[in-house]
Amino acid sequence: MLEETFVPFRGIKNDLQGRLLCYKQDWASGFCAGFRILAPTTYIFFASAIPVISFGEQLERNTNGTITAVQTLASTALCGIIHSIIGGQPLLILGVAEPTVLMYTFMFDFAKDREDLGQKRFLAWTGWVCVWTAFLLFLLAILGACSIINRFTRIAGELFGLLIAMLFMQQAIRGLVDEFGIPERENPKQTALLPSWRFGNGMFALVLSFALLLTALRSRKARSWRYGTGWLRGFIADYGVPVMVVVWTAVSYIPVNDVPKGIPRRLFSPNPWSSGAYSNWTVIKDMGNVPLLYIIGAFIPATMIAVLYYFDHSVASQLAQPQEFNLKKPPSFHYDLLLLGFLVILCGLVGIPPSNGVIPQSPMHTKSLATLKHQLLRHKLVATARKSISKNSSLGQLYGSMQEAYNQMQTPLVYQTPSALGLKDLKESTIQLASTTGNIDAPVDESVFDVEKDIDDLLPVEVKEQRLSNLLQSVMVGGCVAAMPLLKKIPTSVLWGYFAFMAIESLPGNQCWERILLLFTAPSRRYKVLEKCHATFVETVPFKAIATFTIFQTAYLLVCFGITWIPIAGVLFPLLIMLLVPVRQYVLPKFFKADHLQDLDAAEYEEAPALPYNITINEGGPNASGMRTRSGHRDSGEILDEIITRSRGEIRHTYSPKVTSSIPGDDSKNVASPQISERAYSPRVSELRTGQSPKFGGKGLISKETPSPRASTLGQSSHGSTPG
Amino acid sequence: MLEETFVPFRGIKNDLQGRLLCYKQDWASGFCAGFRILAPTTYIFFASAIPVISFGEQLERNTNGTITAVQTLASTALCGIIHSIIGGQPLLILGVAEPTVLMYTFMFDFAKDREDLGQKRFLAWTGWVCVWTAFLLFLLAILGACSIINRFTRIAGELFGLLIAMLFMQQAIRGLVDEFGIPERENPKQTALLPSWRFGNGMFALVLSFALLLTALRSRKARSWRYGTGWLRGFIADYGVPVMVVVWTAVSYIPVNDVPKGIPRRLFSPNPWSSGAYSNWTVIKDMGNVPLLYIIGAFIPATMIAVLYYFDHSVASQLAQPQEFNLKKPPSFHYDLLLLGFLVILCGLVGIPPSNGVIPQSPMHTKSLATLKHQLLRHKLVATARKSISKNSSLGQLYGSMQEAYNQMQTPLVYQTPSALGLKDLKESTIQLASTTGNIDAPVDESVFDVEKDIDDLLPVEVKEQRLSNLLQSVMVGGCVAAMPLLKKIPTSVLWGYFAFMAIESLPGNQCWERILLLFTAPSRRYKVLEKCHATFVETVPFKAIATFTIFQTAYLLVCFGITWIPIAGVLFPLLIMLLVPVRQYVLPKFFKADHLQDLDAAEYEEAPALPYNITINEGGPNASGMRTRSGHRDSGEILDEIITRSRGEIRHTYSPKVTSSIPGDDSKNVASPQISERAYSPRVSELRTGQSPKFGGKGLISKETPSPRASTLGQSSHGSTPG
Repeated sequence: MLEETFVPFRGIKNDLQGRLLCYKQDWASGFCAGFRILAPTTYIFFASAIPVISFGEQLERNTNGTITAVQTLASTALCGIIHSIIGGQPLLILGVAEPTVLMYTFMFDFAKDREDLGQKRFLAWTGWVCVWTAFLLFLLAILGACSIINRFTRIAGELFGLLIAMLFMQQAIRGLVDEFGIPERENPKQTALLPSWRFGNGMFALVLSFALLLTALRSRKARSWRYGTGWLRGFIADYGVPVMVVVWTAVSYIPVNDVPKGIPRRLFSPNPWSSGAYSNWTVIKDMGNVPLLYIIGAFIPATMIAVLYYFDHSVASQLAQPQEFNLKKPPSFHYDLLLLGFLVILCGLVGIPPSNGVIPQSPMHTKSLATLKHQLLRHKLVATARKSISKNSSLGQLYGSMQEAYNQMQTPLVYQTPSALGLKDLKESTIQLASTTGNIDAPVDESVFDVEKDIDDLLPVEVKEQRLSNLLQSVMVGGCVAAMPLLKKIPTSVLWGYFAFMAIESLPGNQCWERILLLFTAPSRRYKVLEKCHATFVETVPFKAIATFTIFQTAYLLVCFGITWIPIAGVLFPLLIMLLVPVRQYVLPKFFKADHLQDLDAAEYEEAPALPYNITINEGGPNASGMRTRSGHRDSGEILDEIITRSRGEIRHTYSPKVTSSIPGDDSKNVASPQISERAYSPRVSELRTGQSPKFGGKGLISKETPSPRASTLGQSSHGSTPG
Repeated sequence: MLEETFVPFRGIKNDLQGRLLCYKQDWASGFCAGFRILAPTTYIFFASAIPVISFGEQLERNTNGTITAVQTLASTALCGIIHSIIGGQPLLILGVAEPTVLMYTFMFDFAKDREDLGQKRFLAWTGWVCVWTAFLLFLLAILGACSIINRFTRIAGELFGLLIAMLFMQQAIRGLVDEFGIPERENPKQTALLPSWRFGNGMFALVLSFALLLTALRSRKARSWRYGTGWLRGFIADYGVPVMVVVWTAVSYIPVNDVPKGIPRRLFSPNPWSSGAYSNWTVIKDMGNVPLLYIIGAFIPATMIAVLYYFDHSVASQLAQPQEFNLKKPPSFHYDLLLLGFLVILCGLVGIPPSNGVIPQSPMHTKSLATLKHQLLRHKLVATARKSISKNSSLGQLYGSMQEAYNQMQTPLVYQTPSALGLKDLKESTIQLASTTGNIDAPVDESVFDVEKDIDDLLPVEVKEQRLSNLLQSVMVGGCVAAMPLLKKIPTSVLWGYFAFMAIESLPGNQCWERILLLFTAPSRRYKVLEKCHATFVETVPFKAIATFTIFQTAYLLVCFGITWIPIAGVLFPLLIMLLVPVRQYVLPKFFKADHLQDLDAAEYEEAPALPYNITINEGGPNASGMRTRSGHRDSGEILDEIITRSRGEIRHTYSPKVTSSIPGDDSKNVASPQISERAYSPRVSELRTGQSPKFGGKGLISKETPSPRASTLGQSSHGSTPG
């Protein structure tokens, strides 16, 4: 994608040029989505606000109340609003992140005992740290350091993703354990902190957090539920997590008899209008009073923060733009890093911790926008097709009008011709179908072209790329500052449940995680992996190589995680992850075959497409349309849910919707009759072992007779496979 | 099955004759199963002992300590041992049941305030009640009242099953709520009963009970897990529930700091060797002291108990012998009722509450024995086939040796020729296969006959009918009396979780429950029901009729449940269920078509076989053997799990393992090539809509061109179904 060029300013210039071309469309596209934009907005708002509030609480404890949730929320809202308006990549979500909290805790521990610094001038000093950090970020951005983003291969990004998930989970567990203890800032003599009530509080916290975790995980899968109307299922899938936070907060108010105030424990934060909450905003006046030695010394933490932000911001942006989502608009790594520098200075001068691109919220944002785009596209095309059919159009005309409608929905970008990628297959396959059933010019009816079903099949994965959802969620985060009295009603235990939920939600699609699971899968059950959508490596790389690679990666992950536990050296963990880049480039090739390494850890430009999955052969012929309609009721969002939670960078829409299969020995009539029209809920091993990837046989064409050598790598215990 | 004959003693005589013939085999068969018999034994032991202990606790509270868990355990063990040795149907599990508890509570409430009866002579009086009850049971048994068992159609049995499930669930919820309150018998001033500790105790109870419920439900599905070795998965599926009881009991000991004794609350029962625990055993001496009026008056509760036991015992026995399990040995309704009479007298005379056949434990027993039989059969046949193949046998010889091994495993009964039912299909289909691939006399290898896979396909559902598991579990229940100090370590909250588990475990397979779920299924999702194994009515009866019937049944169920809440009239609820028999016979036919009624609520002799399910067409031909081997690793127990949790009386093994399908228009070569060889994890709608039931087309023959009218009943919203 990006060429590695280090000519100063070139990267920034290219980014700006690319994004300026689609800037107007960024807004227009957001507004024409209508109220539906609220689903991804709310989803990301909660995913962004809840951790930030909780980090604020953590910081308040660690900094003796110098920084509170008000400050972290303000930083997230401020940076988010600015980035969504003038930032490069609007899919990137900004927020105060766990690493920042770690850094600030360390700096406070250093500053509080210095005589000429102390808690009083801590914020002024961090102001200087931010100035230095911004300076370094400017340098990196101008010199084009982000050009090497392609060297951040899957191994580094996914390891970082897993590390963040572990930190979230650690916070959830630590938080739950703390519910049994005495919080530091409280008066240990109050009723709610008697041993008996603490026990009750801890148990109540267990109930609430697990209840939130389990219900939130379930609600995300609501689209595939069997019960309730489609509208309700969609609503629960879109808004179920926030609804569950509200529900369990309400439940936490049920015990009233005899139960003292303070059980369960709730969020603690000063109201933004209470006295003292504003002391930090004038920190800039105090910056001159910091001794020169400390101003210079601030350079040391600044380098670490700069490295951290460089990596974190870039990887979050990279993860928000995975190739399988077919983004139409250009990335903007250099310019975004430059902007981040300005944001860091701004935050430093007003005494709030800076924000940067966050994981897993940024990829979550992209996924939710893909769902939105899918709904919009589908809505439009179904309407067009229906209209066309009612006019007695032929299949050719139907295709024409749908192509037109599809193109209308495409981003009209100057530098890129609108692609008809997704609909190409339709033309070929429907025409092929028509030629078998009779006349291509005959009027179409729904037995030939099943509107609901076939449109689902041919829609490509696309993302509603716009700035509105990011802006709205940032504004809502800002609104949280005002809504603090309401937020304080949320029990902390619900937060811990939410942390665990976010950690678990970020796992599917992480190939490293899936490889770890594969290690624990019984050899006799590995075929189950093959039945589902799976990455290329499962079939092409021997199990032993997969195992070695995964064990190495897991060990590395554990070392990184262990380092975050070390009080001072802990801030070096981003360096350790960056170290993976040279390790991957120079060390790993000595232990693994190049082919295997490419499949296990491909940089994006060299990735092999995923193997198609879940294609059932519909034996029914044209008469089967009734059945196809019935199964066509499977919610489109449900299918998409499966696709977008799959492995990053590995899914293409190679499932060409209608392909004829040729059974050798069939007569010509039978050649056309079995159609591949239902992908999805009926995994079949037989398709998986026939070579559907471009490497083996034609795309989408099922070659019945040639068992692929790929299939044998997992079928280790191959008894009974001698041919007859 | 049974003819309705009311000639005195004839029923008992027939039963005795039938069971005597297989009595020796009942024992031999049990012993030759080896250690594997322990899996069903332990499973049923826990399912039997835990509720009985809890009922004992309930009775202790309700009878001021006159009857305790020691007595209920003793009754269950005593009756169980006697029944397993000299009883008719050894699949039937006996125990003290919830209805008995209700009856005894009512009788105690009546007796305690009578001056000349009181708590002191309560047991003596119940002795008289038992005598009368036994007298009535003798009458019913001798007059052949059980002959009308066939008129207890599905509607009555399933309603009763649901009612028991509701009572279990009610007990679970009530128990959990009580964990927050002050138990009656305790000193309310002790530390553990302070409001703060009660709150903590209640919350801890919520944690433990839900933890047990969720883990127990998960562990039963262990066979289909992807992780862990097959041995471990099998162990967890077989013993997971007891293991979970132990695990969560251990967890309940974790909180020690500051937590007072008594949190969490644990089982309360006197040790059997403590003083006073034996007072009831000599009750017979006291029976003469009961005033004559009360001796005669005892007839009134006796009639109610007799009706209850008559119904409960027979239905439990009926549910333990469902037709789809292909039992080889005869039923024994009349003789078992007679024996129950003796057991009731025995219990009455020693002052313990009598036991009767229990739901859901009896059907659970049969299911677990079916799993056992399947494992044994499979083990044997796989060994035989392997041996045969290694000798280069032909397909015919292979079949011969397998048939021989299969026959060896069959019960050698005098009155019944050993059936080769399950293996018949094998012969036909393998020979057919051989004729397509070449020579029938050629040596077989595993590409033609995949040992692991094909044997799974052809094994019929059978049950290991023997007396050992019942005897052993009864002895273990008796051992509980001695192990009381250990049992008292189990927290009551774990019990409530177990109650909820039993209620939920009894639901799948209950057609009434499945119809209730169907009512809540969105119309657009009903095709999902069709994809899975489903009862005939889903396709043959219009949805409106299903809905009406289900709403009627649910209303009736709620009335029955409501009546159990009424203190005195509550004991009449068995009458209400028995009333369903005439309602079904005379009232319902006026509202429903005879055809529909037969499909919705068939007596066993008139049931339509279930539609086969989950048959995937294997397109690969002989070359596909590698794939078939891989998918053949699917655990056999897993498949059986699915079959035996399915609807009672509706599953036959109509899935003839290898049947050729004829696609119209195919040439002769193609007729044989697609084989149906994978039933199971790949549901396909297309098979379901083609008439595979005997009513529509040939058995197992897929008629591709004729869409069955059955399919349309559920596809209400039939847009897009106009044929092309």
